Amino acid sequence: MSVLIVGSTALDSIKTPKAENPRLLGGSASHAAVAASFFAPVKMVGIVGKDFPKKYVQLYQRHKIDLEGLQIADGKTFHWSGEYEINMNNRRTLETELGVFETFSPKLPESYRSADFVLLANIAPSLQHHVLDQMRRPKFVVADTMDLWLNIALADLIKLLKRVDGFVLNDSEARQLTQEDNLMAALKKLHKLGPKFVIIKKGEHGATLSIRNGAKTEFFMSPAYPLNRVVDPTGAGDSFVGAMMGYLSTARGPIEQNIRRGMIYGSVVASFCCEGFGLKMTTRVTKHTIEKRVKDLEKLVRF
Amino acid sequence: MSVLIVGSTALDSIKTPKAENPRLLGGSASHAAVAASFFAPVKMVGIVGKDFPKKYVQLYQRHKIDLEGLQIADGKTFHWSGEYEINMNNRRTLETELGVFETFSPKLPESYRSADFVLLANIAPSLQHHVLDQMRRPKFVVADTMDLWLNIALADLIKLLKRVDGFVLNDSEARQLTQEDNLMAALKKLHKLGPKFVIIKKGEHGATLSIRNGAKTEFFMSPAYPLNRVVDPTGAGDSFVGAMMGYLSTARGPIEQNIRRGMIYGSVVASFCCEGFGLKMTTRVTKHTIEKRVKDLEKLVRF
Repeated sequence: MSVLIVGSTALDSIKTPKAENPRLLGGSASHAAVAASFFAPVKMVGIVGKDFPKKYVQLYQRHKIDLEGLQIADGKTFHWSGEYEINMNNRRTLETELGVFETFSPKLPESYRSADFVLLANIAPSLQHHVLDQMRRPKFVVADTMDLWLNIALADLIKLLKRVDGFVLNDSEARQLTQEDNLMAALKKLHKLGPKFVIIKKGEHGATLSIRNGAKTEFFMSPAYPLNRVVDPTGAGDSFVGAMMGYLSTARGPIEQNIRRGMIYGSVVASFCCEGFGLKMTTRVTKHTIEKRVKDLEKLVRF
Repeated sequence: MSVLIVGSTALDSIKTPKAENPRLLGGSASHAAVAASFFAPVKMVGIVGKDFPKKYVQLYQRHKIDLEGLQIADGKTFHWSGEYEINMNNRRTLETELGVFETFSPKLPESYRSADFVLLANIAPSLQHHVLDQMRRPKFVVADTMDLWLNIALADLIKLLKRVDGFVLNDSEARQLTQEDNLMAALKKLHKLGPKFVIIKKGEHGATLSIRNGAKTEFFMSPAYPLNRVVDPTGAGDSFVGAMMGYLSTARGPIEQNIRRGMIYGSVVASFCCEGFGLKMTTRVTKHTIEKRVKDLEKLVRF
């Protein structure tokens, strides 16, 4: 089954203490779509400007990403520039140029509307709603978000959470949204907002899954793949959830049973993402290198 | 086999956003010894003043801790007072009164010197050396430390690392000692200082073990037991390593094979420690409640 992914399609200029890379292919949809492409066919929804480099279109194509839902509009592609501190965890935005995103209204091609797996990757909640409105009867819908939307579009986001099966956010966002410092307490509150599946991403510390099953709640802790060197963590969270959704769309059996392994695949693809700027290392991934790291993670937590 | 534990024996006055508790039983040796006592007989080395409450001696005795190596000296028991911030991770020391610790020179009873498992819990590296000097041929020696010793007794600590099998420290200490922000890089440097086993404690994010085996290095990630509420994390790290050493001293087979499970037991006892002030909840632990949480952790990481 295919995965529909909506999110940002951007050019990222990324500065780290060691290097500077202008106008890399970035955006939540780009990272998530490439990550998902190792597992399943992907239908991408997004918008780019006339300045969008052809080589990036070709990159999508090499990953067999369906681009019927990618609008090419007059104007400039969304451009983000950011800088990482020496510890590679803290980053600050230097500049954001919305470009064609300012007037983006995703219209889904007919062939997209019956997708079973929908990833509403990080983008304005109003656009996530808009995509969901056009879907027929998706089997599993997951939304990601970022702190910006907690600050400027909270009401939209809260409404969205009633419409999704899964919600993915990072630890600081979970704390901000729930006003709970303890993540177990935060998870409980997040379930009350709607989603049955909640995943809190903790960067180098992995991710915690909580599944609400009636009165019972189950947890899973997914380790992050330990890296000797983080080159650029931009897009790691998008890669994580993209790979997870790709895996889930092809795995047999109930989501409840598959999602743990899906998160492991997510951790592995996210680890490759961190090892190069932009999508450089993610695009070099193969089924074989993925499976090798999955085996490593199996050993890493066994006792 | 019994575990010899040297460390601080203290009275702790602990302030959290929710409560204030004066003169609780504390210190690295107290926490580690009680934690180890659920698995093995413990021989404790430490010093207290004449003001040390009888009820705390009785607490040690209830846990069958051998107190032949506990000196009772003229003067006051070491007293630490500290305050936790609302997130329960950041703490600051309000006051430290060394008392009888100022002139402490541990002299091991004859019956202690042949212990096979030695835990040099957090205390001045010179005292850790001094205890090790008096041991016959211990089978497995682990040292813990704290940032204070990195700042004021680094040379002693570096010397100690050449004499121990295992070294346990927390993530910020590992970064400070190695000047490496990446923990995998830090682990590599820590092995070069001597120890075959290095464990980096990451608080609520669990602990990472690295075993150097010739040219090969193996890793293990121990999850922290997820808690809905942290009351007082003081002594959690000491409980972790104490329980691990207690478990290891009774487990059959090579340390390399048992240490992962040892860390899991450590995580579990540390989780109980965090649920009450001082040793309140740790002392209520039973074999049964420990095994239940070990099973929970097994489920928590399975995929």
